[in-house]
Amino acid sequence: MPDQLRSLATALLDSRGADPQAAALQADLLIEAELRGLPSHGLQRLPLLLSRLEKGLADGRAQGACTWSRKAFLDVDGERGLGPVVVMNAMRRLKQKLPETGIAVAAIRNANHIGMLAYYVEAAARDGLIAIVMSTSEALVHPFGGTKAMLGTNPIAIGIPAGDRPFVLDLATSVVSMGKIRNHALRGVPIPLGWAVDADGHPTADPVAAQTGAIAPFGDAKGYGLGLAIELLVAALAGSALSPDVHGTLDDDHAANKGDFLILIDPDAGKGAAPALTAYLDGLRLSRPLDAARPVAVPGDGARSRRAAAIAEGITLPHPLFEQLTALEAA
Amino acid sequence: MPDQLRSLATALLDSRGADPQAAALQADLLIEAELRGLPSHGLQRLPLLLSRLEKGLADGRAQGACTWSRKAFLDVDGERGLGPVVVMNAMRRLKQKLPETGIAVAAIRNANHIGMLAYYVEAAARDGLIAIVMSTSEALVHPFGGTKAMLGTNPIAIGIPAGDRPFVLDLATSVVSMGKIRNHALRGVPIPLGWAVDADGHPTADPVAAQTGAIAPFGDAKGYGLGLAIELLVAALAGSALSPDVHGTLDDDHAANKGDFLILIDPDAGKGAAPALTAYLDGLRLSRPLDAARPVAVPGDGARSRRAAAIAEGITLPHPLFEQLTALEAA
Repeated sequence: MPDQLRSLATALLDSRGADPQAAALQADLLIEAELRGLPSHGLQRLPLLLSRLEKGLADGRAQGACTWSRKAFLDVDGERGLGPVVVMNAMRRLKQKLPETGIAVAAIRNANHIGMLAYYVEAAARDGLIAIVMSTSEALVHPFGGTKAMLGTNPIAIGIPAGDRPFVLDLATSVVSMGKIRNHALRGVPIPLGWAVDADGHPTADPVAAQTGAIAPFGDAKGYGLGLAIELLVAALAGSALSPDVHGTLDDDHAANKGDFLILIDPDAGKGAAPALTAYLDGLRLSRPLDAARPVAVPGDGARSRRAAAIAEGITLPHPLFEQLTALEAA
Repeated sequence: MPDQLRSLATALLDSRGADPQAAALQADLLIEAELRGLPSHGLQRLPLLLSRLEKGLADGRAQGACTWSRKAFLDVDGERGLGPVVVMNAMRRLKQKLPETGIAVAAIRNANHIGMLAYYVEAAARDGLIAIVMSTSEALVHPFGGTKAMLGTNPIAIGIPAGDRPFVLDLATSVVSMGKIRNHALRGVPIPLGWAVDADGHPTADPVAAQTGAIAPFGDAKGYGLGLAIELLVAALAGSALSPDVHGTLDDDHAANKGDFLILIDPDAGKGAAPALTAYLDGLRLSRPLDAARPVAVPGDGARSRRAAAIAEGITLPHPLFEQLTALEAA
């Protein structure tokens, strides 16, 4: 079933002018999100992406124009390329630089949505490298103590090699995703107070009202601070837009002008203590949980086990989405 | 009053064998914490530090032995030096490297407590540079869903230049500091449920019981993930101990074996959009707050205004601490 969906996605991207390699990579990212139980970053993103390819807002042949502005700093114009294509191309160049510099970074503008960030830091961890990836987005999140959507959901992923179960953190700096609020609206279920404010800036339990308002940052002032740091860091380095001016990851009317920032580090440039890390993480997993039925987890564990189950049991796509994709194939 | 306390602190450090420059820098860090209303990182740290100098656990003359393991990666053996001395020495070297590499990092082991992290990223912002500083500590924080103290409070600071009001984030990844819990215990005031568990792993409102238990991470699973990322990143790169094995920032019996990690970035290696950032931050500050009496703040604003007030009005030190420092001066 994943293989069938992968072929379908690849063929659809291919038919809209994507390079075979680019189509395969973009499809792989979407399928991997499905396998991890992250449908908000899975195949439901594909119809919009196809439309963007058709309209020239995404270029399925572009790799991104990379320039070393300094020895360890890669400046990337994404040339409207597919997000994963531009990111993986930049990551390859950073990796080549590490024997010389130990750390190298890439600041990316003008690339399409890069999707599930865990994908990239997992790939780095497989190569024995530490990676940090940040991205910005349309304004959806209000500042702590504020009421207006003025920050992106500004996700960050951090991957650190540790045996066969690397540490893989991937979090949005909002308390919840807009997708989850939409899902509550579809089901007619109220949202907890504290998740969002309505368009007038009042805290609301109504998921419909929340969709025209703003989502809260996670972790109060601290999570707001982290989200804002990502907002500023990415814009300053990539020259991308600040979130109130961002378009192009949720629509098919605008070029994507958000930014992405990648950090790649060779642990061997430092003291590289992978065996100690692995033992420590195993100790965490075995430490006494608050609820005996819910063992302590390390970021990445949940996604790994969901992926293993999905590979064994297959992916279930919502029927309307499957219909839509099949219709697009015939188009 | 700050000047008098600064002279007292400098003289005390000097009398325990610190270099004049090292004594002045360490005293400045402690005074700056007091000025920002952060007494937990202020002069109350000084008696322990003096004892550590006397016992040879801190070396007031060491600068840290710095080696470029790769072109942008500085390996630092702190040689038991005073935290701010080793960090500022490493920062100087990173700064010298930026014209060549754009980004440079330092991994530090074997340095004493580096104190308030904001100090370092503020200094970088004054130089027009972006800085990220992370540090580890003794185990005080339990994993999300766990009950055992297995992580440090693992603070992170991020500084980004933006006109005369730079962004300065400085947060511990615990929901609250152990100092605040101690303060509740001293005053006999219960703590909110969710701040901590007791030694048996049960959530507690008793601040005395909390002191032998563990503090919660901030922001649930996300804050835990961030704190754990810092734990692993620092240990992997600096070769420092993982928090269950860390000693030496709260005692005067052990060498300090936690680690510190510094990242310095030249915004001019990227697109460096400082005017746009400044305008955006001003827009955030002026955006409608949830409570009209509490305007939206940008990280760094609160500390700046507390500092300005303290410079005008002076610092009030708790009398027992002032007595203790005066007695140490006579000793």
